[in-house]
Amino acid sequence: MNDTKFEARNPDYEAITRDGFSRHGLMTHLGVEMATVEPGFVELRADYRPELTQQHGYFHGGLMGAMADTACGYAAFSLTPPGATVLTVEYKMNMTAPGEGEQLMARGWVKRPGRTLIVTHGDVFVIKDDIETLCATMLQTIMVLLGSGSRPAG
Amino acid sequence: MNDTKFEARNPDYEAITRDGFSRHGLMTHLGVEMATVEPGFVELRADYRPELTQQHGYFHGGLMGAMADTACGYAAFSLTPPGATVLTVEYKMNMTAPGEGEQLMARGWVKRPGRTLIVTHGDVFVIKDDIETLCATMLQTIMVLLGSGSRPAG
Amino acid sequence: MNDTKFEARNPDYEAITRDGFSRHGLMTHLGVEMATVEPGFVELRADYRPELTQQHGYFHGGLMGAMADTACGYAAFSLTPPGATVLTVEYKMNMTAPGEGEQLMARGWVKRPGRTLIVTHGDVFVIKDDIETLCATMLQTIMVLLGSGSRPAG
Amino acid sequence: MNDTKFEARNPDYEAITRDGFSRHGLMTHLGVEMATVEPGFVELRADYRPELTQQHGYFHGGLMGAMADTACGYAAFSLTPPGATVLTVEYKMNMTAPGEGEQLMARGWVKRPGRTLIVTHGDVFVIKDDIETLCATMLQTIMVLLGSGSRPAG
Repeated sequence: MNDTKFEARNPDYEAITRDGFSRHGLMTHLGVEMATVEPGFVELRADYRPELTQQHGYFHGGLMGAMADTACGYAAFSLTPPGATVLTVEYKMNMTAPGEGEQLMARGWVKRPGRTLIVTHGDVFVIKDDIETLCATMLQTIMVLLGSGSRPAG
Repeated sequence: MNDTKFEARNPDYEAITRDGFSRHGLMTHLGVEMATVEPGFVELRADYRPELTQQHGYFHGGLMGAMADTACGYAAFSLTPPGATVLTVEYKMNMTAPGEGEQLMARGWVKRPGRTLIVTHGDVFVIKDDIETLCATMLQTIMVLLGSGSRPAG
Repeated sequence: MNDTKFEARNPDYEAITRDGFSRHGLMTHLGVEMATVEPGFVELRADYRPELTQQHGYFHGGLMGAMADTACGYAAFSLTPPGATVLTVEYKMNMTAPGEGEQLMARGWVKRPGRTLIVTHGDVFVIKDDIETLCATMLQTIMVLLGSGSRPAG
Repeated sequence: MNDTKFEARNPDYEAITRDGFSRHGLMTHLGVEMATVEPGFVELRADYRPELTQQHGYFHGGLMGAMADTACGYAAFSLTPPGATVLTVEYKMNMTAPGEGEQLMARGWVKRPGRTLIVTHGDVFVIKDDIETLCATMLQTIMVLLGSGSRPAG
């Protein structure tokens, strides 16, 4: 959870965030959708499909990582000025429960927005019978590249 | 790179490692293959496909994470006794170059094998015109569950 | 910040947490004090001294790491049953601002309490003229050893 | 271990690396010495003292973190051009054994030198009866600030 409220520096932040996300071949291929975009916050969701599983039929940890990385990266991107782009420098993720459920949800928040580096954090929940269980948590570093076209995280 | 040589405690380590990997729906869906299995070492490879890309057409960072996590996890699994299984506790990954090339290769090594926890590390390379470029590096913690069926990392 | 409320399983949680902390030679040597102990939460504080600095006279990043690691570890310890001990498996820390001020404060919270592994997170603030600035943030994994004397994190 | 050989861009790399280190009040206070400096590599050592311990009388994990962070940071610093400085962006450390012994040794290597960000890794060993045991391993991100005085990591 994150109580801090941020203001976007780009009035078109939602449109460019959604546009950038829509051009990720991998996210489209995996059926991941961008559910929510707010300044400094992004939520992604993916419905269960056999192609998204590990050997027990649960959501794969690799999917949790990819979704959390992307949610956090676009949360950072939503706060950047027009023309800026972002890159994932690194992230660390803890797995806290198996991904057993009908839907996977990744939420990314900006923790500390810097001019060059933005620190974000994210939580991944699996939803089963309307109950959300935390299955992963992430701490991430994003680099901002000013005025260099459009190249969001990933 | 890793100079340490380990001995497998399970004579069938290669067969069970390959078998476990083959049951990952996500890895199959993404076209990832297990190229090499040695005691404490695993190499995975994926050929370029548009479905594996981010918005610039390079290999997606989420794929690098999923492949490195899996390579490291199975490197740990290859050293466990018969009947044991492994789970990813957590990992940290640095992205060092864009994934621009024809093939992505993830190598995972055991750094320190414990009875309950195994520390591994991994490197991801992208191959373009026969030149390997390091594009990500990982440090990972794996938990060993003794005598509990077969449930490798992920 | 962390909204989750936990219940201690050991009625003496505060006494044993403070007692364990008091036996860290390094913490005493550095003048670190345990300001607050609640179930799943610990706050440590250290006043400015020249011995705690890096080359610019600010609080040293190594001190931030040691204090955050200890605050998070004892936050986990406060939730363990009688007789249990904890060990730091690993942590990751982002530095977000220089430690320029009169006092350094590390807060550790339990994020997800497991039977064997506890995931915690922590924030380090520097206080200058009554203003708190976030200078580091941590995500940590703690291992619980049941019934083995008293051996908290560190 | 690291096989890569780097060339220093500053002919005075050893002198400025040792000079920067000597101005860390915390390192002096803890009795840490810079044993070796090579381009892209630094080794630090600290002899056992009761002030460096946790509650069992072993070297404190906080000291391992501070020494590994500093060794890795100065390994990065040794490769920077004249006038540059470095800052720790973040690091992740796994603890692999208790610090039981007479001397603690931290080695830091550059893994991938970038213009703005340098990825390093480090190992911490405890030495007891001439036997080195790995007790921690680190993966770290360093930021380079060009032409801005002298402000090494920490």
